[in-house]
Amino acid sequence: MELGKRLIKGDKRACARLISLIENNDKRAIEVIKKHYDKTGNAHVIGITGPPGGGKSTLTDKLVKLLRKNDKKVGVIAVDPTSPFTGGSILGDRVRMSDLATDPGVFIRSMGTRGHLGGLSKATKGAVNILDIYGVDYIFIETVGVGQSEVDIVKSADTVVMVMVPGLGDDIQAIKAGIMEIGDVFAVNKSDLDGADKTALELEMMLDFKKYDTWRPPVTKLSAVKNEGVNNLLDNIIKHKEDMFKSGKFKLRREKNAKLEILNLVEEELMEMVHRITDEHEGLDTIAKKVAIRKSNPYTSRDEIIKLIKK
Amino acid sequence: MELGKRLIKGDKRACARLISLIENNDKRAIEVIKKHYDKTGNAHVIGITGPPGGGKSTLTDKLVKLLRKNDKKVGVIAVDPTSPFTGGSILGDRVRMSDLATDPGVFIRSMGTRGHLGGLSKATKGAVNILDIYGVDYIFIETVGVGQSEVDIVKSADTVVMVMVPGLGDDIQAIKAGIMEIGDVFAVNKSDLDGADKTALELEMMLDFKKYDTWRPPVTKLSAVKNEGVNNLLDNIIKHKEDMFKSGKFKLRREKNAKLEILNLVEEELMEMVHRITDEHEGLDTIAKKVAIRKSNPYTSRDEIIKLIKK
Repeated sequence: MELGKRLIKGDKRACARLISLIENNDKRAIEVIKKHYDKTGNAHVIGITGPPGGGKSTLTDKLVKLLRKNDKKVGVIAVDPTSPFTGGSILGDRVRMSDLATDPGVFIRSMGTRGHLGGLSKATKGAVNILDIYGVDYIFIETVGVGQSEVDIVKSADTVVMVMVPGLGDDIQAIKAGIMEIGDVFAVNKSDLDGADKTALELEMMLDFKKYDTWRPPVTKLSAVKNEGVNNLLDNIIKHKEDMFKSGKFKLRREKNAKLEILNLVEEELMEMVHRITDEHEGLDTIAKKVAIRKSNPYTSRDEIIKLIKK
Repeated sequence: MELGKRLIKGDKRACARLISLIENNDKRAIEVIKKHYDKTGNAHVIGITGPPGGGKSTLTDKLVKLLRKNDKKVGVIAVDPTSPFTGGSILGDRVRMSDLATDPGVFIRSMGTRGHLGGLSKATKGAVNILDIYGVDYIFIETVGVGQSEVDIVKSADTVVMVMVPGLGDDIQAIKAGIMEIGDVFAVNKSDLDGADKTALELEMMLDFKKYDTWRPPVTKLSAVKNEGVNNLLDNIIKHKEDMFKSGKFKLRREKNAKLEILNLVEEELMEMVHRITDEHEGLDTIAKKVAIRKSNPYTSRDEIIKLIKK
């Protein structure tokens, strides 16, 4: 049976295969998404983000288990940075999730930040589409919430959960990384640590700076490791989902995300064209060499390349 | 006198004005860079990066003062994230640099991460070009080294200084953010803190994982606040610069950076075209709305937009 049909029937191996294909920008996966796109849009996408060391993986693990108790089908995409020093994805965190890996109602995939940035964002979006067709009820995208690329990825979620912890210098980190504003729901993890109350209070104070119409992001103290308070967080996620529907924000957010997804795809296609067309002429490396020795300049080079594209 | 001529003559106000213009993608600034690009390439560009709270601003301050003692002209570009919660750039760190602001041999500019990502990278590059024409000997680009966007900016430097501190959970942070590999020179700041030796040792061990030909990144322990060891760091920066020249790596890095700069400019120009051309038709918002309600899909939309561009 072809992969698309197997995917619709809930074949986990077909799902895994198609996500690998979409990661490699393979046309077979794109055709499946094109053909079955009308079956997407049902899964609620939850972004889990926050500073490193905040216990995001453990928290995701516990949230997934709660949803499984209610018989929900769940997908998890963990965006793992890679380093040439370690030679690949740091998957240590994911090991703790291994007991979920054998659950037929859970699909887990780790993705490295290897290679092109637009590529990771596109791959994540593609994986969400495939999990959506596969028929999961909830999709978690878990990523270190520092830097624009990861923020872009997590912003495409329907509900963004910001996970903070006491004592990480989190106030500085959060503001500096400019990620506070994207949280729909806040969690203060490791609530048994000293300073948890202070961190929660600081968050509330920071949230007070902004005006809200229907939804003010709630702050939940919890301990993922001790499995305390995780149900309160899930309640808040569900409440946010309901508020989005009632207020009409859901539709607006989905439209904004669709626009970003399209622009991402267009950008990548155009840049592939740039490489192809300059290769047919003198090549990007030759152009760059001329600029490096100041025989040309970046702006004139840009104009020349745009002229080639337009031809 | 026109801005370009004033810039070459070392007019600080013309420099400030042109950097503001290039931040806004103004043609007048682009023309100045085009016309005087043969006067660029002389400044040594130093990227200062590392986890938040590492004391990068103080360290930059001290490095600038050391260079001023040797009568070097210096430019500083501080990339400051913005947050809607604070209403603008977090310039607190920069206040400490205020005694340098009145020094005619120092030019300091803060840039926010507001708006489009490619835009910030482009604005930083543009500011480097203008400072280069202005005639500074050294340009510092200081930024929180987390996330791809900031890594991209700092990578365009000739020498990248990674600033670590003990006790920030720095091992996790550095690996997770995948930034270790871009450091040419390492600094362990706050060397008086417990754990400084351990942090330096861990860095050395991590560096041992990689093979080197001519240059193995040195690790310098220092205290920027106490102004201890900063001269050793500057020595290592100068040594790296000399090694780059001797080994021929300088030329290669400049070529690679020129290529990235050109691609960045081309990408932005093309995406402006996409917005302009789709606006002449049904518009991106309408296209996105159709995708959001699953009457179309992102891949078909992409193909349609590319077709419009090619026409």
